[in-house]
Amino acid sequence: MSRDAVINVGLMGLGVVGGGVASALLREPSLVAARAGCPVRLRKVLVRDVSRPRDVELPPGVLTADAEDILGDPEIDILVEVMGGSDPAADYFRRAILSGKHVVTANKEVMAKEGAELMALARANRVSLLFEASVGGGIPIVGCLMNELAANGVSSIRTIINGTTNYILTRMAHQRTAFADALAEAQGLGYAEADPTNDVEGIDAAYKLTVLATLAYGCRFRPEDVFRQGISGLEPQDFRYAQEFGYSIKSLAIADTGGGGVQLRVYPALVPSENMLANVNGVYNAVEVDGDLCGRVLFHGMGAGRGPTTSAVLGDLAETARLVRDNAAPGGLRELSDGLGVRSIDELQTRYYIRLIVADRAGVLAQIAKALGDCDISIASVLQKDADVETQSAEIVIMTHPARESSVQRALLDIGGLPPVRRVGNMIRIEE
Amino acid sequence: MSRDAVINVGLMGLGVVGGGVASALLREPSLVAARAGCPVRLRKVLVRDVSRPRDVELPPGVLTADAEDILGDPEIDILVEVMGGSDPAADYFRRAILSGKHVVTANKEVMAKEGAELMALARANRVSLLFEASVGGGIPIVGCLMNELAANGVSSIRTIINGTTNYILTRMAHQRTAFADALAEAQGLGYAEADPTNDVEGIDAAYKLTVLATLAYGCRFRPEDVFRQGISGLEPQDFRYAQEFGYSIKSLAIADTGGGGVQLRVYPALVPSENMLANVNGVYNAVEVDGDLCGRVLFHGMGAGRGPTTSAVLGDLAETARLVRDNAAPGGLRELSDGLGVRSIDELQTRYYIRLIVADRAGVLAQIAKALGDCDISIASVLQKDADVETQSAEIVIMTHPARESSVQRALLDIGGLPPVRRVGNMIRIEE
Repeated sequence: MSRDAVINVGLMGLGVVGGGVASALLREPSLVAARAGCPVRLRKVLVRDVSRPRDVELPPGVLTADAEDILGDPEIDILVEVMGGSDPAADYFRRAILSGKHVVTANKEVMAKEGAELMALARANRVSLLFEASVGGGIPIVGCLMNELAANGVSSIRTIINGTTNYILTRMAHQRTAFADALAEAQGLGYAEADPTNDVEGIDAAYKLTVLATLAYGCRFRPEDVFRQGISGLEPQDFRYAQEFGYSIKSLAIADTGGGGVQLRVYPALVPSENMLANVNGVYNAVEVDGDLCGRVLFHGMGAGRGPTTSAVLGDLAETARLVRDNAAPGGLRELSDGLGVRSIDELQTRYYIRLIVADRAGVLAQIAKALGDCDISIASVLQKDADVETQSAEIVIMTHPARESSVQRALLDIGGLPPVRRVGNMIRIEE
Repeated sequence: MSRDAVINVGLMGLGVVGGGVASALLREPSLVAARAGCPVRLRKVLVRDVSRPRDVELPPGVLTADAEDILGDPEIDILVEVMGGSDPAADYFRRAILSGKHVVTANKEVMAKEGAELMALARANRVSLLFEASVGGGIPIVGCLMNELAANGVSSIRTIINGTTNYILTRMAHQRTAFADALAEAQGLGYAEADPTNDVEGIDAAYKLTVLATLAYGCRFRPEDVFRQGISGLEPQDFRYAQEFGYSIKSLAIADTGGGGVQLRVYPALVPSENMLANVNGVYNAVEVDGDLCGRVLFHGMGAGRGPTTSAVLGDLAETARLVRDNAAPGGLRELSDGLGVRSIDELQTRYYIRLIVADRAGVLAQIAKALGDCDISIASVLQKDADVETQSAEIVIMTHPARESSVQRALLDIGGLPPVRRVGNMIRIEE
């Protein structure tokens, strides 16, 4: 503990979340200090431009544009990072850990790409590395996987973990808007960024899933291990047909075990309407953990935003401050193994929704059914929609029985090559 | 830490949960040891009758009927208690804490009645006292209130926290069975005990609510602070009318702030059908926390049973074992204040459902409306059901606008005294 019996915090980043953290630390009486059981002082705040006006009023001398003022200050006990981006954050973490500073971060990208290495480094240096805010905002899933649920063998984690995507899908489902319109609306409300790639292509969700899987299975996973498909290919009629069959469409991030490995996947999926995940709407997130002891536990809450993310950062900060106060060893970060392999998406076994645009003529369905049968895929139900007179085309929607992904991919290639098939409209996996 | 570099556990109770804990500790490789980062050994198990046959095979010499073998053994680092009942458990805890043993317990009754005192004693003796399993089984709400959500000012906790009651209410709602039949069914399935008083009268829920409120508000509350009403007065038609108005009936345990105090209440309530709590069915539990930072976070899972409760006990045990291993100071238990008073149920302000059995004659509704108006209660909607020709009586269901509990109680006395009113069928509070 620092010599003056006060815990000193160096904060990196003063955006939406950084402002929330700084405000909470400057408030009197401080709930963080009460929970930590000792004074917690904001000593330095790293920003890019110290001259820019800020919402938060900081004591003089606290703002700095030089990371060295935090990393090189032996009085600072805890580094709190809320800048985002993997570079230079990861290097800062390494330097902080090596010089005995504890780290609290909201950085999903760093934790997904370099979390395993950083956890090992923190263990070796007997400092704490906490990252509740990196996944799920106000949903306390990181800490629960590390502690409260730690005695469970986890068979699966099924999540709606990107609020932007879920907002867009909710709009598409309820208002029957096209993807582009729903996206523009989300951008207008500040839910989606100008370049929405990270959200709508599932990159953000893949980072978060990597972090959760690493904790749940005690194994090192990387973002590249995640099979990833975005939501931009969904069309309004997919939502209509899904509803007719009794399903909602949700972008799920899933980790599950089977066949001696873990499968990690992010994609839009059909979820039965009565399922709790089907009823997670708007910018809400949800995480469903299946443990061998606890059974199925669902967490539902705000996955992002100033308040929820600040809540997570401050919870970690209070825990870390107690550790510093008591000069105690950090817990939670167990040693990671390389024991579990990653199963390829080709080995996925599930039911499929397939939408085809075909020429409106007799015998088409028979050809399609044969192509599916040739790949060992059996049909559970079929919906044939009224033909479009002008283009002389019709839409066929097929729900399959459980089939293997590789077979479905092969069948779709075959079907796409059938003369009366104009286009494979969509293939969406079903998660019961 | 004990001299032989192994953490020694003394277990009290070898019932359903005790068996689960013992099995997990005896299994090799031990997930608890892996999470704790050191060997964790089951040294003694206290039972009433050592000669009774058991499902779990224990090493020779482990079983004992003498609590002294655990409390007086300096080699035992952690006492794990899963016997239940406040006597003699509370005394055992005090002795264990005073002799430097850490305590993990599933005992809601002790924690509700004497938790504040025991937490203070544990703090003073620098030992850990964890009780995740005392509330919510597999739902990690205790740890989350202590740690992950600790930075929040909590405005309310709304819960479905008794699985037996929720099972009975779910049956009554879906099968339209009478209370007595649903209870008998729950008893047949082992969900309800032979004497169901603790569950159906809300005593169990009041214990759990006391524990949650103490953690959320950092104040000492007692079971007597909880206003409590059971579910045995509900009749099948209440579920039918509730549904007609768009509501479900759930037994809720609620703590919320307002008017400078905390109100604690357990009662059956009308919950809007689209609300997540309305869709918690069967033996499932749910906890909804409203925090100033995190927003509304909902936890849903199995509230009881061998697996979920064992999960909670083992999570606490692993955390405690890490503490012992590192000779670290325990965190989490903050000092409790007496700052917040308890608000009386009389001050509750909510909407009410009132069902009356009246004589089938003209002018009755006018008299009832006048009695309500005299008490400053205004009617939002009324449902008058076809009269019963034989008894010449009719049923009137009234939904009020927000009103004060004390006014409603007064009005019901007045209404009950009106000549054409045969009986007040039910009054159920509405929780939007």
